[in-house]
Amino acid sequence: MSLYVTLQEECFEANMLLPEKKLVLYTFGNVSIVDRHKGVVAIKPSGVPYEELRPEDMVIVDMQGHIVLGHMRPSSDTKTHILLYNHFPRIGSIVHTHSTYAAAWAQAMRPIPNLGTTHADHLVSNIPCTGVMTDEMIKGDYETETGNQILEVFKNVSYEEVEMVLVACHGPFTWGKNAQKAIYNSVILEELAKMAYLTLQINPLTPTIKDTLIDKHYQRKHGKNAYYGQSY
Amino acid sequence: MSLYVTLQEECFEANMLLPEKKLVLYTFGNVSIVDRHKGVVAIKPSGVPYEELRPEDMVIVDMQGHIVLGHMRPSSDTKTHILLYNHFPRIGSIVHTHSTYAAAWAQAMRPIPNLGTTHADHLVSNIPCTGVMTDEMIKGDYETETGNQILEVFKNVSYEEVEMVLVACHGPFTWGKNAQKAIYNSVILEELAKMAYLTLQINPLTPTIKDTLIDKHYQRKHGKNAYYGQSY
Amino acid sequence: MSLYVTLQEECFEANMLLPEKKLVLYTFGNVSIVDRHKGVVAIKPSGVPYEELRPEDMVIVDMQGHIVLGHMRPSSDTKTHILLYNHFPRIGSIVHTHSTYAAAWAQAMRPIPNLGTTHADHLVSNIPCTGVMTDEMIKGDYETETGNQILEVFKNVSYEEVEMVLVACHGPFTWGKNAQKAIYNSVILEELAKMAYLTLQINPLTPTIKDTLIDKHYQRKHGKNAYYGQSY
Amino acid sequence: MSLYVTLQEECFEANMLLPEKKLVLYTFGNVSIVDRHKGVVAIKPSGVPYEELRPEDMVIVDMQGHIVLGHMRPSSDTKTHILLYNHFPRIGSIVHTHSTYAAAWAQAMRPIPNLGTTHADHLVSNIPCTGVMTDEMIKGDYETETGNQILEVFKNVSYEEVEMVLVACHGPFTWGKNAQKAIYNSVILEELAKMAYLTLQINPLTPTIKDTLIDKHYQRKHGKNAYYGQSY
Repeated sequence: MSLYVTLQEECFEANMLLPEKKLVLYTFGNVSIVDRHKGVVAIKPSGVPYEELRPEDMVIVDMQGHIVLGHMRPSSDTKTHILLYNHFPRIGSIVHTHSTYAAAWAQAMRPIPNLGTTHADHLVSNIPCTGVMTDEMIKGDYETETGNQILEVFKNVSYEEVEMVLVACHGPFTWGKNAQKAIYNSVILEELAKMAYLTLQINPLTPTIKDTLIDKHYQRKHGKNAYYGQSY
Repeated sequence: MSLYVTLQEECFEANMLLPEKKLVLYTFGNVSIVDRHKGVVAIKPSGVPYEELRPEDMVIVDMQGHIVLGHMRPSSDTKTHILLYNHFPRIGSIVHTHSTYAAAWAQAMRPIPNLGTTHADHLVSNIPCTGVMTDEMIKGDYETETGNQILEVFKNVSYEEVEMVLVACHGPFTWGKNAQKAIYNSVILEELAKMAYLTLQINPLTPTIKDTLIDKHYQRKHGKNAYYGQSY
Repeated sequence: MSLYVTLQEECFEANMLLPEKKLVLYTFGNVSIVDRHKGVVAIKPSGVPYEELRPEDMVIVDMQGHIVLGHMRPSSDTKTHILLYNHFPRIGSIVHTHSTYAAAWAQAMRPIPNLGTTHADHLVSNIPCTGVMTDEMIKGDYETETGNQILEVFKNVSYEEVEMVLVACHGPFTWGKNAQKAIYNSVILEELAKMAYLTLQINPLTPTIKDTLIDKHYQRKHGKNAYYGQSY
Repeated sequence: MSLYVTLQEECFEANMLLPEKKLVLYTFGNVSIVDRHKGVVAIKPSGVPYEELRPEDMVIVDMQGHIVLGHMRPSSDTKTHILLYNHFPRIGSIVHTHSTYAAAWAQAMRPIPNLGTTHADHLVSNIPCTGVMTDEMIKGDYETETGNQILEVFKNVSYEEVEMVLVACHGPFTWGKNAQKAIYNSVILEELAKMAYLTLQINPLTPTIKDTLIDKHYQRKHGKNAYYGQSY
């Protein structure tokens, strides 16, 4: 029996949450999970509909993206995932979707502003949007360059405080310490994207919320004196 | 067996209605119920997902917010609930959600105008929105100050006629004589928020409806000569 | 056994379609059915939630709106239904809802323009919106005056060709030869309301469609040489 | 037993996917499948609700649109389907719906611009919209002229690269090598229509995406060196 059966099963179950949470249509989207001890990543195979997916279809690749185990081609976004795992050492899982409202903001090439406490409960800053790639990047190693565009954003932003990003003209990537958190972040991002959209339709001049309020909500949930939740 | 088993069960069942009515995601939102004879409030524990919630997890606090019974930390919004129970003597239950359309209006810092009879069937005025808190209030006893912001609105408004409010930059609170009514008000508020949003998109200059029409609909349902419903 | 058991059952089943078709929340909305031979109308009782509704709760009223049979108060909109049955001799059922998009157009006091063939398949004209009632009408016999506002619209419009109307500041009424058709019209109206809303958001200057196209679609479905469907 | 039993069953199952995918209400929409060896097309009967539909109700017509087998009248759109099969020799199935967002773009008479990679994954160009028919065309052989309007668009566009079109003032048609692909295209079109709508609401000046990016995404999925999916 393979060394990677448990990892494949976890990755399978995580991927199956995407249609359940209504984040994807057909073959859209993918979840990967890293096992840093074994030095491998499990990821959805490319272009397989969720209803046909089986645990053993999950592809195992090494930290350079080479296939270690699997009878199928891995997600075409694999290089983006690998680059992020190599640069974000404390994340355990990455999710990519084309969820409707988040993708609309990505297409509009606009970061999602922090307009309320629902947003501030999850992150301090806006939800950043990458720049548009140059033609050279697109024609070159496209999926690695997608990762590079994301890294560019996180030069000045902590990937542990901001666990989500919009890739301009494309769609969202989220991550977290494990698959459950990375998927949670995709669900939250889609809701924040919808809420910000509606807010700006109601009042196009809505300002971002006060720094004190952002800080209060973020710290009560994530700070060292946090008092939200049970596990602090 | 605890004195509060029935109260915990009622509070549990009320909280479980929030995901069923699609008012919340994950751990968002909370319902509390007051027992004024015993001088206690039952409230959802902080940060526990609905699918893991059990009746015995409901936290019992006294009217100063101190824990009387419970193995978990109560909702981080407990102080807001307590303040409202102490100032609104005839309410029996409070609901807080981040439901999408109501939260969008709260983020836009706009009261929801009374644009039609669906609204007038439930309340005479617009749905008020609090002011934005000062930095001092936010840095101070934040959740109590959230309650104070709500009380400020109800200095000149009857909390028995208007059973809902938007907290600016945050989201809605609703209440009622019992949990069923408080949750009903959250569902209605979300629908009124969506309907008002669409109305102003169709015609940004839509006026609020005539006072005579507001009065007619409100009185036929809630006045002393009410003829809507069966129990008057 | 009552003379009206069958009528009550039909009316009950028709009312239960409203929540199934997602046209109503809680106690909103009502369906009535007329039996012109017996000279009576069956209608939903006022303010009863759908999940508690039973066939024997349907109230039977005569053509003046007086209760003939029933242990509950009839819908507060009964007089509006009665007036329409008395003036529209060939309709068999009336539906009133506060469905979201149709109510938004009613609140915006705008008729829904005929912008495409989905609309033209069902009616030739726009979906009319009544005028706003005077204070005297509102303070007087309000529900009868609601019916009068509708009749005003249909002075120059055929109620058999246009089986739906928006009551300004309120919401939609639809009707048809039987309950199935009246409910069908409520579902279609909600979809036309949403489609017209989106169309005008995409292109605020969208013109109404050509008369020739309206005529073609309406006639191929409803004209004497109709070739849509099986029953012509 | 009929020569066409299998074709009827396939066509029935394909039609039943339309309500399942929430692309249609009541009798709206239709799917046809061509059998080019037998020279026949199976198509939904006109105006029959999906819940009453049975495999044997599917009508078999020849390539001139004459009924070969069937006890019901075929879809009123049959001539449009036939014309497209005769001019698009490598398609196997056609779907017509009035899905909400796609129909709204058709009513707005606007092609759906290519604003992101979700779109570029499926087609290079925008999603074209036909011109508005002249009165003569409408009054003449309307359904054939609808097909002619579509053909006009595809004079300079490959029907194999762009498998979808909006008919102005009406709604979408999609096609594909088989029914599964044609329905897939209807689902994708509806999603692209919604995403483009939201994008332009967020940023009305959103440009179409770079040609290099369109090319990259389209080629990685559909080009001769495609590396998306498993079957290349």
